[in-house]
Amino acid sequence: MKVGVIGCGYWGPNLVRNFSAMDEVTVVAVCDSREERLDFIRRQYPAIRLFTKESGEILKSPDIDAVVIATPVSTHFPLGMEALANGKHLFIEKPFTATVEQAEGLINLAEQKNLRIMVDHTFIFTGAVQAIRKLVDDGTLGELYYFDSVRVNLGLFQHDVNVIWDLAPHDVSIMDYLLDRQPKAIAATGMAHFDTDIENIASISTYYEGNLLGHIHVNWLAPVKVRKTLLSGSRQMVIYDDTDPSEKVKVYERGVEMIEDKNAIYDILVQYRTGDMLAPRLDSTEALKLASAEFYKAVNENRAPKTDADAGLRVVRILEAANRSIRENSRVIELD
Amino acid sequence: MKVGVIGCGYWGPNLVRNFSAMDEVTVVAVCDSREERLDFIRRQYPAIRLFTKESGEILKSPDIDAVVIATPVSTHFPLGMEALANGKHLFIEKPFTATVEQAEGLINLAEQKNLRIMVDHTFIFTGAVQAIRKLVDDGTLGELYYFDSVRVNLGLFQHDVNVIWDLAPHDVSIMDYLLDRQPKAIAATGMAHFDTDIENIASISTYYEGNLLGHIHVNWLAPVKVRKTLLSGSRQMVIYDDTDPSEKVKVYERGVEMIEDKNAIYDILVQYRTGDMLAPRLDSTEALKLASAEFYKAVNENRAPKTDADAGLRVVRILEAANRSIRENSRVIELD
Amino acid sequence: MKVGVIGCGYWGPNLVRNFSAMDEVTVVAVCDSREERLDFIRRQYPAIRLFTKESGEILKSPDIDAVVIATPVSTHFPLGMEALANGKHLFIEKPFTATVEQAEGLINLAEQKNLRIMVDHTFIFTGAVQAIRKLVDDGTLGELYYFDSVRVNLGLFQHDVNVIWDLAPHDVSIMDYLLDRQPKAIAATGMAHFDTDIENIASISTYYEGNLLGHIHVNWLAPVKVRKTLLSGSRQMVIYDDTDPSEKVKVYERGVEMIEDKNAIYDILVQYRTGDMLAPRLDSTEALKLASAEFYKAVNENRAPKTDADAGLRVVRILEAANRSIRENSRVIELD
Amino acid sequence: MKVGVIGCGYWGPNLVRNFSAMDEVTVVAVCDSREERLDFIRRQYPAIRLFTKESGEILKSPDIDAVVIATPVSTHFPLGMEALANGKHLFIEKPFTATVEQAEGLINLAEQKNLRIMVDHTFIFTGAVQAIRKLVDDGTLGELYYFDSVRVNLGLFQHDVNVIWDLAPHDVSIMDYLLDRQPKAIAATGMAHFDTDIENIASISTYYEGNLLGHIHVNWLAPVKVRKTLLSGSRQMVIYDDTDPSEKVKVYERGVEMIEDKNAIYDILVQYRTGDMLAPRLDSTEALKLASAEFYKAVNENRAPKTDADAGLRVVRILEAANRSIRENSRVIELD
Repeated sequence: MKVGVIGCGYWGPNLVRNFSAMDEVTVVAVCDSREERLDFIRRQYPAIRLFTKESGEILKSPDIDAVVIATPVSTHFPLGMEALANGKHLFIEKPFTATVEQAEGLINLAEQKNLRIMVDHTFIFTGAVQAIRKLVDDGTLGELYYFDSVRVNLGLFQHDVNVIWDLAPHDVSIMDYLLDRQPKAIAATGMAHFDTDIENIASISTYYEGNLLGHIHVNWLAPVKVRKTLLSGSRQMVIYDDTDPSEKVKVYERGVEMIEDKNAIYDILVQYRTGDMLAPRLDSTEALKLASAEFYKAVNENRAPKTDADAGLRVVRILEAANRSIRENSRVIELD
Repeated sequence: MKVGVIGCGYWGPNLVRNFSAMDEVTVVAVCDSREERLDFIRRQYPAIRLFTKESGEILKSPDIDAVVIATPVSTHFPLGMEALANGKHLFIEKPFTATVEQAEGLINLAEQKNLRIMVDHTFIFTGAVQAIRKLVDDGTLGELYYFDSVRVNLGLFQHDVNVIWDLAPHDVSIMDYLLDRQPKAIAATGMAHFDTDIENIASISTYYEGNLLGHIHVNWLAPVKVRKTLLSGSRQMVIYDDTDPSEKVKVYERGVEMIEDKNAIYDILVQYRTGDMLAPRLDSTEALKLASAEFYKAVNENRAPKTDADAGLRVVRILEAANRSIRENSRVIELD
Repeated sequence: MKVGVIGCGYWGPNLVRNFSAMDEVTVVAVCDSREERLDFIRRQYPAIRLFTKESGEILKSPDIDAVVIATPVSTHFPLGMEALANGKHLFIEKPFTATVEQAEGLINLAEQKNLRIMVDHTFIFTGAVQAIRKLVDDGTLGELYYFDSVRVNLGLFQHDVNVIWDLAPHDVSIMDYLLDRQPKAIAATGMAHFDTDIENIASISTYYEGNLLGHIHVNWLAPVKVRKTLLSGSRQMVIYDDTDPSEKVKVYERGVEMIEDKNAIYDILVQYRTGDMLAPRLDSTEALKLASAEFYKAVNENRAPKTDADAGLRVVRILEAANRSIRENSRVIELD
Repeated sequence: MKVGVIGCGYWGPNLVRNFSAMDEVTVVAVCDSREERLDFIRRQYPAIRLFTKESGEILKSPDIDAVVIATPVSTHFPLGMEALANGKHLFIEKPFTATVEQAEGLINLAEQKNLRIMVDHTFIFTGAVQAIRKLVDDGTLGELYYFDSVRVNLGLFQHDVNVIWDLAPHDVSIMDYLLDRQPKAIAATGMAHFDTDIENIASISTYYEGNLLGHIHVNWLAPVKVRKTLLSGSRQMVIYDDTDPSEKVKVYERGVEMIEDKNAIYDILVQYRTGDMLAPRLDSTEALKLASAEFYKAVNENRAPKTDADAGLRVVRILEAANRSIRENSRVIELD
């Protein structure tokens, strides 16, 4: 499979490195409008053709089978449509598109042309998320009660989209994958603390059938990174702290049953845990390595990849509804 | 000051111990309907008069100056009204009352009778909350952006009120004290996962003038205790983890200014912090010791105590609005 | 059983409280030369007889069955001998005695008089140490390789014994209990950083048959408390951090076998763990409650208590040898 | 500067990457006896000449200015001598050599030929060690009391040297750099738990003039990585945990002075800290990037590099003495 990469910002070198590392794949071309971003590629991968002005070469080149799109989200739709029209499979950075309508457009065209679209929801391929999904699937957690995710990022710099479009795709895609169901309603709030009208802090609540709640808080501009997800079930609870190098996932067993004796309750109130805690060993394979391999395999086997365009669409639908709720003063937005 | 204590459940022995420890205060009587709860008092404090059937003795006794009410919230209003009518000062457990109307009733009667009411928002008196308030007051944090509090408690047992009335008074009173302003609107969600209709998980969003957001998540039934509050400002950010014995409060300095250079941004994205972190030494005096002393001094000096009935009322107003929002499908409730 | 307590410093009130809490035991008398240390007892336990000048009353009183000795170590031997001579059972604070000879003297007299001696190695009764001992006993850890304990305490104040006699009894008694064997040799180093010749930092190495090493580091004067013990075996490893409220004991499974493939080794070198980590739920009963109950039961059942005088002697033997090694420039001291 | 690299094991690719990344340096040749280790180089750096059989090409090639030696320690001396004889500067992996005598041999020849030798004590170039050294230099820590370092590594595999030669060079070089003085005596213990006579656990004590103690514990075969260093001074204490991604260095202020009041002492005994804790922001530049740049600059400026051959020799002297102590039953070895 011959791959062309459009966009070589923060994530671009990782994409080039992982696709290049597969024996079955060759990265033949990379394009970025900033000359200095291509320097690294030029040094490390002298065989790759580089383009600064035009992505057209990559979108049209007959020797390219698949296009990796790692540009700002506003360009995903036009670039993706042109790539599909030219018969290329797509590996697109998150978020899939800027609107639900665009996502549906890409999905329809890919279906007509029998091409694959994979959205780079990288976290789904981490050992941590895979381990938690397994705990959900095998019933360890029991009935799911609550999903709470906090993602607070460093830095004080300009963005072209708000914090929901920038950070929340991670949490929403993890939530989509772990809960494996769709919210029936969404409410959100956001605040812009600078001259712009781009929200830098936001909070999203998601409501599900069956007494399940979700909550996501995303925040730029903080001086410390926080990436903590809590998934609470009737039997066990998981705390996933992505900044912890050795104990990212902690699984808490309940250990006690319904207590009626008030004095026993008082004893428990001063404790910190009621059961064992297990921090399972996690697969430490680089998530993007697994994601790029999955893309190649899906194309090769002519099947939908793990984080396909439908997953991308589900995430965009939630992001879009959250932004609508913010504009309408945190009104609860019903989804169908 | 002679004190009578009504209710001797989980918190009762702590109240008796702290009021007894003051030289200026004598606990003369304790009342609880459960005989076994009085055993501990009988052993340790043989001089204290004990009552099991009737709180009337305490409410009416002419040698009692102040009454401590540590009974279920539904009884706070009638017991408090009778105590005030009999000329007693009040030290009332959180939440102050079950409704805003009840709170206003107690406030009015106390004013007429020139009596003091203090609500036991114990956390306000911790070294941690005092240290954070100082960071707010002296401008260290800068303009406040976000308050986020998660309180997840152990245990699986029956309650007479929902998790908002049980746990959120802690977070709401801390938020009230640290932010020092009132929300203009509130939305909340809650879920009951058992046969009862008592919510055991809930989430409250509070909206303020001036681009400030608050969020509180409370949760019973978890196998591990979580008590984490994040307060984010324009200059610094505080993370308060009440379960950490030695580093409860961590203050993160920003350390970097607005960055325009995209390559510098990429460097920052892989880091965990952008400035120093300071974990200040905290006063470790028992919070209830300070609270009970404050009550005595306020009565003695004929002034409002630190966490007075108005603070209690503000908290009850938020709890009441949150419960209304839950009943109305998370509708945003405007406060005046 | 009627108990008299001699010495009411830091630990005294805990001893009085725990012995008083047992239905089968009555604390009838307490003695301390400092009047202010008895105030607390007077308030809380009006029925207890108090003595400031003379411990003789307690040592001789015919209505006292057992004496608790919580005075400086230099007085343990004379007080203990007199108590035994008067037919009292002994509960003695750690360290048991100031010399091996004194320990043997007490043991001999107790045997002659058929009396019980228990040494207050409180940590042995913690849920943490009990859980680790279980992992040793059931073979979970495998063959033991290494015991390493660091105990760094707060504060800058005067002591009458060096840091080995003050802090190391905790670690040595834990090591004695967990390893369940005696060292064949000991070397130690210590430093006195103040005008006195009392060491405030010390390090003890213990050598065992069968390729087992022990190491203890004790340190006063630090600004932060450290209490960390590492026990490494052929199958699993335990890290016990006594300052961690919810995850005191962490058990690390190995998870991988002998690896020959060099490339696989390179992969492992960048990881943090090779197997699961389990933090078992620990019994949170107060250790001193269990210790005082054990003493009562041992006396009642006419049997040796769990941490008996022999355990106390073993600890003193190691402390004595460590101090000798320090005086002889860290020479390795052989034990028989 | 043209560089040839001999040895391409675990660390080799990092060396090639960092030397290649400098504009002023070109890696012209890499040699390793294992063909598969060169594959990565071949892919990423097609311009580099590769050799599998002979290191002679690199040692002799007239277009090579400096040789990087990353082979087993037993080969450092012969390879280094030949490289120096051929007029090459040397960048040698730690430990510098297998014996003090070899180290002195290399130093003498380098002096005769006016060539530079740098030993790759990479940790010295980390932001963490640099920050701690600054605290030592500016007197923040006060007089140094104690250095304690624990390095426990993952994995169960064969080694050609014992754990002291493998892991302790890190700790010894950090200790050498931070304390900036030489021990007057050394004692050590080690154990081999497998059929071989290669110690896999070892402990080194170092004694200094002026009441300073050092202790290093190194350990293979553990299921979890531990890399913790404690440096205690008269004013402050530092805990350096290299596995903590965001708070590697914690500096604890004392905060209290000499306390004479016994009751105040009892209060402090139940606390965890007596002063503030500061976790300073650390420079996160890759240490090897700084080390390789230092080597280039030292060669260019004709001056000794930061971690020069003398530093390498000091480390080897301690390692050699520690091994001698082990062979002589932990005898204290005096150094001159």
